Amino acid sequence: MAERTTVFTLSTGPVDAYPEVLAGISRPVRYDFDPLYLAEYERIVERARVALGTAAAPVILQGEPVLGLEAGAASLIAADDVVLNLASGVYGKGFGYWAARYAKEVTEIAVPYNEAISPETVRTKLAERPDVTIVSVCHHDTPSGTLNPIDEIGAVVAEHGALLIVDAVSSWGGMPTSPDACHAALYITGPNKCLGGTPGLTILAVSEAAWEKMAANPAAPRASILSILDWKDAHKADRPFPFTPSVAEMNGLDAALALYLEEGPEKVWARHALTAAACRAGIKAMGLSLWAAREAIASPTCTAVAVPDGVSADALLTEAQMRYGVVFSKGRKETDGKLVRIGHMGTTARPLYATLAVTAFGGALNALGHTVDVGAGVAAALSVIDAAP
Amino acid sequence: MAERTTVFTLSTGPVDAYPEVLAGISRPVRYDFDPLYLAEYERIVERARVALGTAAAPVILQGEPVLGLEAGAASLIAADDVVLNLASGVYGKGFGYWAARYAKEVTEIAVPYNEAISPETVRTKLAERPDVTIVSVCHHDTPSGTLNPIDEIGAVVAEHGALLIVDAVSSWGGMPTSPDACHAALYITGPNKCLGGTPGLTILAVSEAAWEKMAANPAAPRASILSILDWKDAHKADRPFPFTPSVAEMNGLDAALALYLEEGPEKVWARHALTAAACRAGIKAMGLSLWAAREAIASPTCTAVAVPDGVSADALLTEAQMRYGVVFSKGRKETDGKLVRIGHMGTTARPLYATLAVTAFGGALNALGHTVDVGAGVAAALSVIDAAP
Amino acid sequence: MAERTTVFTLSTGPVDAYPEVLAGISRPVRYDFDPLYLAEYERIVERARVALGTAAAPVILQGEPVLGLEAGAASLIAADDVVLNLASGVYGKGFGYWAARYAKEVTEIAVPYNEAISPETVRTKLAERPDVTIVSVCHHDTPSGTLNPIDEIGAVVAEHGALLIVDAVSSWGGMPTSPDACHAALYITGPNKCLGGTPGLTILAVSEAAWEKMAANPAAPRASILSILDWKDAHKADRPFPFTPSVAEMNGLDAALALYLEEGPEKVWARHALTAAACRAGIKAMGLSLWAAREAIASPTCTAVAVPDGVSADALLTEAQMRYGVVFSKGRKETDGKLVRIGHMGTTARPLYATLAVTAFGGALNALGHTVDVGAGVAAALSVIDAAP
Amino acid sequence: MAERTTVFTLSTGPVDAYPEVLAGISRPVRYDFDPLYLAEYERIVERARVALGTAAAPVILQGEPVLGLEAGAASLIAADDVVLNLASGVYGKGFGYWAARYAKEVTEIAVPYNEAISPETVRTKLAERPDVTIVSVCHHDTPSGTLNPIDEIGAVVAEHGALLIVDAVSSWGGMPTSPDACHAALYITGPNKCLGGTPGLTILAVSEAAWEKMAANPAAPRASILSILDWKDAHKADRPFPFTPSVAEMNGLDAALALYLEEGPEKVWARHALTAAACRAGIKAMGLSLWAAREAIASPTCTAVAVPDGVSADALLTEAQMRYGVVFSKGRKETDGKLVRIGHMGTTARPLYATLAVTAFGGALNALGHTVDVGAGVAAALSVIDAAP
Repeated sequence: MAERTTVFTLSTGPVDAYPEVLAGISRPVRYDFDPLYLAEYERIVERARVALGTAAAPVILQGEPVLGLEAGAASLIAADDVVLNLASGVYGKGFGYWAARYAKEVTEIAVPYNEAISPETVRTKLAERPDVTIVSVCHHDTPSGTLNPIDEIGAVVAEHGALLIVDAVSSWGGMPTSPDACHAALYITGPNKCLGGTPGLTILAVSEAAWEKMAANPAAPRASILSILDWKDAHKADRPFPFTPSVAEMNGLDAALALYLEEGPEKVWARHALTAAACRAGIKAMGLSLWAAREAIASPTCTAVAVPDGVSADALLTEAQMRYGVVFSKGRKETDGKLVRIGHMGTTARPLYATLAVTAFGGALNALGHTVDVGAGVAAALSVIDAAP
Repeated sequence: MAERTTVFTLSTGPVDAYPEVLAGISRPVRYDFDPLYLAEYERIVERARVALGTAAAPVILQGEPVLGLEAGAASLIAADDVVLNLASGVYGKGFGYWAARYAKEVTEIAVPYNEAISPETVRTKLAERPDVTIVSVCHHDTPSGTLNPIDEIGAVVAEHGALLIVDAVSSWGGMPTSPDACHAALYITGPNKCLGGTPGLTILAVSEAAWEKMAANPAAPRASILSILDWKDAHKADRPFPFTPSVAEMNGLDAALALYLEEGPEKVWARHALTAAACRAGIKAMGLSLWAAREAIASPTCTAVAVPDGVSADALLTEAQMRYGVVFSKGRKETDGKLVRIGHMGTTARPLYATLAVTAFGGALNALGHTVDVGAGVAAALSVIDAAP
Repeated sequence: MAERTTVFTLSTGPVDAYPEVLAGISRPVRYDFDPLYLAEYERIVERARVALGTAAAPVILQGEPVLGLEAGAASLIAADDVVLNLASGVYGKGFGYWAARYAKEVTEIAVPYNEAISPETVRTKLAERPDVTIVSVCHHDTPSGTLNPIDEIGAVVAEHGALLIVDAVSSWGGMPTSPDACHAALYITGPNKCLGGTPGLTILAVSEAAWEKMAANPAAPRASILSILDWKDAHKADRPFPFTPSVAEMNGLDAALALYLEEGPEKVWARHALTAAACRAGIKAMGLSLWAAREAIASPTCTAVAVPDGVSADALLTEAQMRYGVVFSKGRKETDGKLVRIGHMGTTARPLYATLAVTAFGGALNALGHTVDVGAGVAAALSVIDAAP
Repeated sequence: MAERTTVFTLSTGPVDAYPEVLAGISRPVRYDFDPLYLAEYERIVERARVALGTAAAPVILQGEPVLGLEAGAASLIAADDVVLNLASGVYGKGFGYWAARYAKEVTEIAVPYNEAISPETVRTKLAERPDVTIVSVCHHDTPSGTLNPIDEIGAVVAEHGALLIVDAVSSWGGMPTSPDACHAALYITGPNKCLGGTPGLTILAVSEAAWEKMAANPAAPRASILSILDWKDAHKADRPFPFTPSVAEMNGLDAALALYLEEGPEKVWARHALTAAACRAGIKAMGLSLWAAREAIASPTCTAVAVPDGVSADALLTEAQMRYGVVFSKGRKETDGKLVRIGHMGTTARPLYATLAVTAFGGALNALGHTVDVGAGVAAALSVIDAAP
């Protein structure tokens, strides 16, 4: 038990923030009615727009992305909507509960939590239920570490004429994905996953159709922390804010966006992908199994490892931290106890973190009496890194 | 037009954060399920409890205090409640709108926005309306810079047996006030006013009776950003969080609380009071009028100055900033255009900032053709400072 | 005695660092042999070169500018050199002591410490002493707050064929001055005066002739902290450092240079000049005298005020700090007790700081029984600010 | 070539600074004559004294430890001194050159640079040369990664009656060593090795005898950056500084000392030792050799690995960085090209960094065609970590 502390945070969020973000968040706090701050805010939103690769200014909601998800459900889903919720994991499933608060009906496609939703199933379901007006999907269902094919699903939904709500919180910034590519009405993400920012804000892309539908929804929150509508034009330098924005968080977001754009999204995505590939090679070389039914649906931003029979997930997490100072993420709800997740997000999406993860993961298993060959794991991870161009 | 930029922010919030807070907020971000972070979070909440001077652990909501106010209304006010809302300003009035969403009925005592609510009026009103179950009051109605006597009002409300919701956002930390002293059921404040922290969190003290009432309210938000109940035990190291806390903001809060306790609340309050007194002496010596009907009800954390006839408040604000680099706060809604506010909160609650404020305020008026004697103003402010023990 | 602490540092250095510098200095520390750091260092030196407005890469010595001055004397002045030292203040005089350690002879032009050296005197002296090979001059003799006309002196020295050593520590960055404009052989400045950086480095411009003379000087320090020669090519990315550079200070310097270039040197100089002019108007309006014999030789980066008869300079400094939280600078050696200096450097070279200085200065005098009209002072300062374009 | 950047700095200095140090160094800069700063400086020096475990206040010189070493030689070694220099590496050897500038004579005990000086040899030499008045030794000769037994050598020197100069730059703070334990006259260390601070300061313990000898040495630098004497009482709150201290660096030092004392020196030393032990086990398991002739003389703060025949040290360093983002340290002078050094200092003195080092080191060798079994290396390192109590 050499460490008894936290040295490396390899979680799926909150993740380690980049040093530049921590320097950025410590910039002086400005008064939100200061005209110079209003212009600064607009500039940050514009930077977020560029990073999202979309045409319209996104909304920055002043709370972590669960606010965005709840606000999205409350704002977009009206009392006469039929929602098709796609549930391939704890987060996708969970969105259905929010949807049910506001919709006339929520229907669902559910798959086992180590599986992904197929676009064909969605097409079939929408054919059966032409009254579906809104579809909701989680891109990377973090508690499972699995991806749904949102671009293909989005095409099917667009064809059907429904609006798509996408939870892209832990995928955006770590792989090729954008609001436009999946025809999202609402596309919800945040700074504290692949962007390596701090938690506390939602980045929300809203389509023109979504703005219209929310405006037409009398029950959409207004004068509320849950309101999206209140923020429609609030980023403009000549408009006031509905309430005080989290100025420091915005400064941190600004720094995180600058890093992302300066490094170049393709390069950022590539190192997420390589780190994940190396990590998985290492995990498998130790005789362990990925949680995902197929590696093809495993997210480049997270490696979810099935906990071997006879091993306690909590004990494994404790060993990794107390023995090596490495923090991994637990499962959530249905996946709790069944898997342990290794985050590859932002600053830890660098290949050598994969070998670190494999080392600590394997070492913790050995300490618990489940013998694995850590050396083989590290060597396999290294082979993947070495094969990178 | 020497400056054209912002050098001194003398707003009523967001205010300048202390350098120590900005250093604190740049501490590494931890994973929220990390057991060591869970213990850290509990420690910060305990520090907030000590600062509040109350017995029970407060709740830290993960959004600026408007979240706390809306969540308080949504959680405490049930469908059968009659709320007496005390409206002496824009914020007090505004709370009534939230209350009306949830209450059976909202009745109100309203006074002009340069006045304060008298405890006797409350007593009379409650005698008339024995069915009032909840009373809501804003301590320092920032858009007017005026204080209501919440301790005396709280005693009347307690006697009546109703629950009191207190908005102490811009008073707590800058003068002697606490949840217990006013018998508050919910006492809502935050780090970005007198504490000199960053915006983005609510500090919320909840009485035992309030916990019971919220738990018994079937409509109180649960599984929502608006939920208070979800956070009841979330600060305990052995409980998970309902969702990701704003880790960086919590680090900043920790630093702000440490400063407050280290300096000593009495000393902090004293410099707020002295700065306000000096500022007012200076303002009056320039022949200007305070907005408050009587100086006795003017808050030590803000000096609201009535804009002289023939002067545009916006023009005054622009002159102060563009000419001297000094940012003041505008009025809000009914007070917009009628007053300009000089904040005395946290790091700017130091006496010499009063002379700075008087200088820029007077200079801006002169520039607009409303001639005042700035020298007399500064001398008067200085006399107050010099008379301090 | 309201404050008993330090709120505003209006010193002549160390000065308040810009927040951006403090964020910059907290960037991660890199290994000095890391090729990526070597390139970074070269980039910072190039930025310093641009800021200096000169053609050749400057040397960054790893200690505050007294290191640069001592190293300059030790390196440039050889055993057969005759040095003409120009002494118009404590610092200019002091350089003569260093010069005397290395030179064959040091001759001097000395003027009272509230005066400046005239170029004509230098011309006459050099005509008398054709054997003078090196001339040394302090541009802004900070303990007096007075300027010498180094560009004109430099022209005379160049004509004579001697090498000029210039101490521009507290002038460069705050007014129009550059190594080339004064034909300097060695031009010594630093980041912690007008640049608003942190102390701990010397910025040193070296002419080609100076490099040649130092290389030819067998007594010039080598393999020493006092060596300039060791650093000749050390900024190049393919060369090692003689010893470990102060990586954090370099990061802070980088941020300070970026601010300076981004704002634009002319704008920076203009606000130094305006702040000084406003401050002096205020000081004089209180019936006080500048230390400088003529305002024309007073530096835009410092206002040295003659302490009135019967007043103790130390008592005045104590009153200003304990009463108002304002720190001014003491005199040094011969000027100690005779003057108090108000710095206008970097972040405090903003006009409203002048009114703040006048307020605290006047207030402190009043507290000591030397009655002045602070209001008149502030009004006069404000008039200057208001008259700015 | 996955990385092409620096992700992990595993150098022997400058090392990664602790995040708390980077937050500390960004504290506001104070004027060095501010009485409150003078008190603050004295407090920091007292903290350094406690950390050094010695009775007298140390001197903080305002430049990285090469300043301390040169100043020590210049100050302590007088023209009639005979110095015995102990040279077991590049740094020890190098000190002899400085000593030779000042001493009547320098005699030397030299051993191969992978060896250590034996106390018995020193005893024999001193018996032969009773005229030796000063002995100089480097504790951890970083370019070799080897330790000299300074406590035993110090006892011999004390018995002889000579004064001992100790270079403890890269050992102090990482293992049990103190000025008193080795009877040092001058004991030179700094914040940027095991303390995890930033470079830019020297921490210097001076014995009473050393103070006396320096004061009696007419050639000891005074009024110079090289002076130790100038700083004798400069840490006292009622004394001025000889020149401006590096205020930001002092703030960083304060934070680094606080971390060291809070964690507890024994714990800090233990994790340095464990990291080194794990690293060496891994290196050896890959069939590689330590540079040190015997592991017993290898420093717990650095693992110097002999570069295998046929491998280029520079190529190895480049591969580690470009491929994995890991920076190691080069050899210096005689050891350059022969060894590569893995630092275990401060924040990287945590066991899992050993596995990271082994992974990158082995991977880089494999990439260069020198095949090693990285898996075996990591497994061996892990075994050592797992065996820790």
